[in-house]
Amino acid sequence: MVLERLQQMASHLTGQAAEHHPFDPLTTSEIATAVEIVRREYNNVHFNAVSLEEPKKADMMRWVADPEHNAKPHRIADVVCIGRGSKVFDGLVDLTQGRIVKWELTEGVQPLITMEDLQIVETVARKDPKVIEQCGILGIPASDMHKVYCDPWTIGYDERFGSSVRLQQALMYYRPHPDDSQYTYPLDFCPIFDADQQKIIHIDIPKTRRPLNTAPPINYHAEAIKKEGGFRNDLKPINITQPEGVSFKLDGRTLTWQNWSVHIGFNYREGIVLSNITFNDKGNVRPVFWRMSLAEMVVPYGNPEHPHQRKHAFDLGEYGGGYMTNSLSLGCDCKGAIHYMDAAFVNKAGEPQTIKNAICLHEEDAGILFKHTDFRDDSCTVTRGRKMIISHVFTAANYEYCVYWILHQDGVIQLEIKLTGILNTYAMAPGEEAGPWGTEVYPGVNAHNHQHLFCLRLDSNIDGPENTVFQVDATRGEGEVGSEQNPYGNAFYAKKTMLETMSTGTSDYDGSTSRTWEMSNTNKLNAHSKKPVSYKLVSREVPSLLPKEGSLVWKRAGFARHAVHVTRYNDAQLHPAGRHVPQTSGSPSQGLPAWIAADPSGSLDNTDVVLWHTFGVTHFPSPEDYPVMPAEPMTVLLRPRNFFTSNPAMDVPPSYSSTPSQVAAGKSGIRGVVDSLSRLAFGGGQAKKASDDCGCK
Amino acid sequence: MVLERLQQMASHLTGQAAEHHPFDPLTTSEIATAVEIVRREYNNVHFNAVSLEEPKKADMMRWVADPEHNAKPHRIADVVCIGRGSKVFDGLVDLTQGRIVKWELTEGVQPLITMEDLQIVETVARKDPKVIEQCGILGIPASDMHKVYCDPWTIGYDERFGSSVRLQQALMYYRPHPDDSQYTYPLDFCPIFDADQQKIIHIDIPKTRRPLNTAPPINYHAEAIKKEGGFRNDLKPINITQPEGVSFKLDGRTLTWQNWSVHIGFNYREGIVLSNITFNDKGNVRPVFWRMSLAEMVVPYGNPEHPHQRKHAFDLGEYGGGYMTNSLSLGCDCKGAIHYMDAAFVNKAGEPQTIKNAICLHEEDAGILFKHTDFRDDSCTVTRGRKMIISHVFTAANYEYCVYWILHQDGVIQLEIKLTGILNTYAMAPGEEAGPWGTEVYPGVNAHNHQHLFCLRLDSNIDGPENTVFQVDATRGEGEVGSEQNPYGNAFYAKKTMLETMSTGTSDYDGSTSRTWEMSNTNKLNAHSKKPVSYKLVSREVPSLLPKEGSLVWKRAGFARHAVHVTRYNDAQLHPAGRHVPQTSGSPSQGLPAWIAADPSGSLDNTDVVLWHTFGVTHFPSPEDYPVMPAEPMTVLLRPRNFFTSNPAMDVPPSYSSTPSQVAAGKSGIRGVVDSLSRLAFGGGQAKKASDDCGCK
Ligand SMILES: [Co+2]
Ligand SMILES: [Co+2]
Repeated sequence: MVLERLQQMASHLTGQAAEHHPFDPLTTSEIATAVEIVRREYNNVHFNAVSLEEPKKADMMRWVADPEHNAKPHRIADVVCIGRGSKVFDGLVDLTQGRIVKWELTEGVQPLITMEDLQIVETVARKDPKVIEQCGILGIPASDMHKVYCDPWTIGYDERFGSSVRLQQALMYYRPHPDDSQYTYPLDFCPIFDADQQKIIHIDIPKTRRPLNTAPPINYHAEAIKKEGGFRNDLKPINITQPEGVSFKLDGRTLTWQNWSVHIGFNYREGIVLSNITFNDKGNVRPVFWRMSLAEMVVPYGNPEHPHQRKHAFDLGEYGGGYMTNSLSLGCDCKGAIHYMDAAFVNKAGEPQTIKNAICLHEEDAGILFKHTDFRDDSCTVTRGRKMIISHVFTAANYEYCVYWILHQDGVIQLEIKLTGILNTYAMAPGEEAGPWGTEVYPGVNAHNHQHLFCLRLDSNIDGPENTVFQVDATRGEGEVGSEQNPYGNAFYAKKTMLETMSTGTSDYDGSTSRTWEMSNTNKLNAHSKKPVSYKLVSREVPSLLPKEGSLVWKRAGFARHAVHVTRYNDAQLHPAGRHVPQTSGSPSQGLPAWIAADPSGSLDNTDVVLWHTFGVTHFPSPEDYPVMPAEPMTVLLRPRNFFTSNPAMDVPPSYSSTPSQVAAGKSGIRGVVDSLSRLAFGGGQAKKASDDCGCK
Repeated sequence: MVLERLQQMASHLTGQAAEHHPFDPLTTSEIATAVEIVRREYNNVHFNAVSLEEPKKADMMRWVADPEHNAKPHRIADVVCIGRGSKVFDGLVDLTQGRIVKWELTEGVQPLITMEDLQIVETVARKDPKVIEQCGILGIPASDMHKVYCDPWTIGYDERFGSSVRLQQALMYYRPHPDDSQYTYPLDFCPIFDADQQKIIHIDIPKTRRPLNTAPPINYHAEAIKKEGGFRNDLKPINITQPEGVSFKLDGRTLTWQNWSVHIGFNYREGIVLSNITFNDKGNVRPVFWRMSLAEMVVPYGNPEHPHQRKHAFDLGEYGGGYMTNSLSLGCDCKGAIHYMDAAFVNKAGEPQTIKNAICLHEEDAGILFKHTDFRDDSCTVTRGRKMIISHVFTAANYEYCVYWILHQDGVIQLEIKLTGILNTYAMAPGEEAGPWGTEVYPGVNAHNHQHLFCLRLDSNIDGPENTVFQVDATRGEGEVGSEQNPYGNAFYAKKTMLETMSTGTSDYDGSTSRTWEMSNTNKLNAHSKKPVSYKLVSREVPSLLPKEGSLVWKRAGFARHAVHVTRYNDAQLHPAGRHVPQTSGSPSQGLPAWIAADPSGSLDNTDVVLWHTFGVTHFPSPEDYPVMPAEPMTVLLRPRNFFTSNPAMDVPPSYSSTPSQVAAGKSGIRGVVDSLSRLAFGGGQAKKASDDCGCK
């Protein structure tokens, strides 16, 4: 037992498994090897990304099905390099063979902006004479340029500069003191940074100038709260412990828990990737999803004034959710018994980097899993649920995204995302009103309306890769009240509409019909219901893309035009806004619209399909969100429907269970996994006796 | 401290406070007194309900504002009695004065069906010759009538019998063994029970007969699971403890916690009632909601065949969510440090009854409350949240409803409802298909499509009773892409539409605009945003009522016709489907439609208004839901918007907080309320040192 733990620690906490699973992220040594192989032939490049090129699905499915008789897929590194003059090279390095298998100069694209790219801009901006001049106009003397800060953003797309020069726009701020939140002091101008030349090439200056905010600082860090009267002292600790250890196991990066099995990958772009998700259904290991990830996002801002239309970050495709991921802490980000996984990346210089504790794995109590009491005799069964959470948190400049992939015992998979962090803010002129495009969240601070739109990529594998997607609408029966087919007017049913081809395989959200989407295997019917085995996508936070058709965001974020797109599976199609997203013009649209246009009549019926689901929130800021936002959660559910022949969690030990005959005989039922530590709040600390407490009566 | 606890135990665990708060439910002794006073004058009645007649709002608001100089409202019992010939008496007994102040014979109504009413039907049905005959037709010999069970339901409305005779419909089942789930063996006929005569007066028999199911039993209780191979054994305990006690306090039934104050009431009908909800905003106690409850629900079934149109239980108005409430158990229904409150009711004979542990109060960890990391230097603040949960669980025949009222530190109030229990089922003929109106969830078992629609009554008190409700839609800016007002096409804003009058004060759900509703005090603007202080209703599970306009359900459940109705406040308007719901015909509609019709042009602008919100789910059953449903959760949020001038939870002690200057000086930040018990899952059980673990880097 101890040996097993030590082995797990040795091989997996380090991310350096002796034997790689083909889905494992590249280790630091593999990254170093890939860089070394590239360097042999191309020495004048710096590295934008070195990450796992995932195996071809067909090869991988064969190997998963029968690893003894099929070749194990090679370890291949997907390499993005940038050479002189912002030349971009896309390469593949076969690590198994130790050679470059692809090396291409890709014209007219910009790979994503790394954290290193971001860090440079502030330093350059502070020294730039034109920036210093603009700061002076707002009342900041040149001697105070160390108090000027900037959040470098990708530029979106600016037709004045196009795509061939590597650019960032610098959202400018000021801090009276280094510990003051800069978001209270936005500056009104916007320098544009050229990464090649490492200089500011232009400054966008608004017609109406907005002077530096004169409001006092508002801060949320501990030092500030202590000055403001201190912390509340009436919050008693809640401890969560697992004295007998956790209920999950890891074999390398393959997690098994409560009939689930899932490989946990991670890359610089999507962050967590879950692969080969299966559910052990009474001994029958059934595939559910082949791969699941957040594939892209976009955060369009709704202020029409130039240059705010450029604020629509693709946080995954333009910065990388993995690159921006936080190193997590015990008891801070997650409580209880935690297992962490590290993440390995390359830096610009080609050196492997590690983010410690990038992924958190832990269990939580999930409340009542099921309960029923017979009203006749109060015989009762009550069973508590448990959930398994695989999470990471990433910081996108001002915002924080907390991503929780949650497995439930009843076969449900949940994706919860919490938004927190700080609002993006802009300056206000005296007398200016923030509305209708924003809200004055603090004096002189305008937080613009925006949307957070996430694209969830679901490569379903419902009892096999041949699946079909149906739109499902709760629909009234035909016939008016009094008609023969609907005499009482109460008839209703689930209307299913197949998404048939690539060009027609889209669906918008309809809350009034409680619209859901089912991923079904039409070749396999549920033994009882005779309906296809399915997983249902239940998602209720599904705003429309608010930038209009033809707008820059609409063109660049094709995935956000519909709540659901379905495509035929293609190994090369992972990124719904394109492989290289920064500075794409959207003419033509990259990613999803391009794939659909290439095969408009491609059938989606009973074939290997991928469902792309765009969901999120429209955020109209308010002062409650400032100076730091209380986390706002959002949930997407994947629920088994007609997949199991009965509730798959009935064998979870109950808290209590009694039968009518036990009640009739005056016997108590079975007391199960109830912890003996629950206490009455005001009982002086003693637990009541189990016999008093348990039971359902 | 110990004394305080003992006092609390003595006065409040028993529900027998020395000094009643005017919102406190009637105690057992008050119920006994009310019964005694009634009995003096009316001896030939039995009791349907004796519960608190809540004080008039105007009187109560005066008293709350200044209890020393205003009269404390009298304790008044609302009494419903049934006399011979199903005569219904509505009475009020002034307990302070010790006299009946109102006693009226109410014609043509039926008060709700109590648990005692329900219990009788099965006994009568088993002995009824016509029921025995029908059972015989299905193959059940007369000697097996003890194996026949019934779930008595309110009849809805059946025009053949009208409203003057007190009726129940008996949904019939069979159990091969007393411990088998009867829902696997539904019988196809439906006896109608007359409560006056205590006999079956009619049996509805379908044209096509459906024989008794021959499938083997499927059960979920512990004895059954043990026979089927036993429980899974890989689930390790999770313990939740509060060694220093809970963070909430109770003064009588008034809970204070994390700036919140709320009075916790309970009645036989709505279950939990939250009153006088205030938030202490930096010393300023601000009213938020005057009263909040689940006021009604309806569960319409979608099978058009007679008599299934009668299946549309109003679980609150026809049975009572309080009457059906479960007695809860430590560690089973809730874990950790729990405070329970009992509930007191009257029985038919006029005796006070107590349900122990009817309400559960406890805290839970709520994950990250807020977090932000500065990407420049990794200075960071991360703070964990806590929530306060006030819950009860009620059993409505086959279904269980778990109701969680949740207070959050950031000013959010959440209502979470979990559905669990067992599907209502019906028999199937050989070769019959369950679809499209239902699903065969187990061989021979047809679970019909249905909706669970809840009506949340919100008596807002946003900085005072004069409030206004706005429908809020995320809306694209005017002007096409390239136009002067929307040059880039990216403009969007929150479009607010006032609900102006009683007749126009309705709103349906629109998921595509992320529609929400704001309860605002237009007399008071947020100091920063200059927008009215508001609470926003965020609700995403809002199906349309699927029974058609003119159908029985549509007529009876007027509240379900729209997602939102707003009415002018009226003390008498608590029950949106009427005071006495059973056997209402819906012609005319009781409750909301009647109130609106009585005052169609009544202004809703800046006056005391009530918002009625109908939400829920449309449930298309599947085999996963059988034989017991994994809990399906649903959430409604009330979020402060422009109510506070900043995040109201900034003074919650952080897990960790560091500033840029601390980072620059090489100092670590503040380690706050992180528990020292969190552990690495595979670290051999030792916690890492705090200095290693905490911090955000
Ligand atoms: Co936001
Ligand atoms: Co249901």
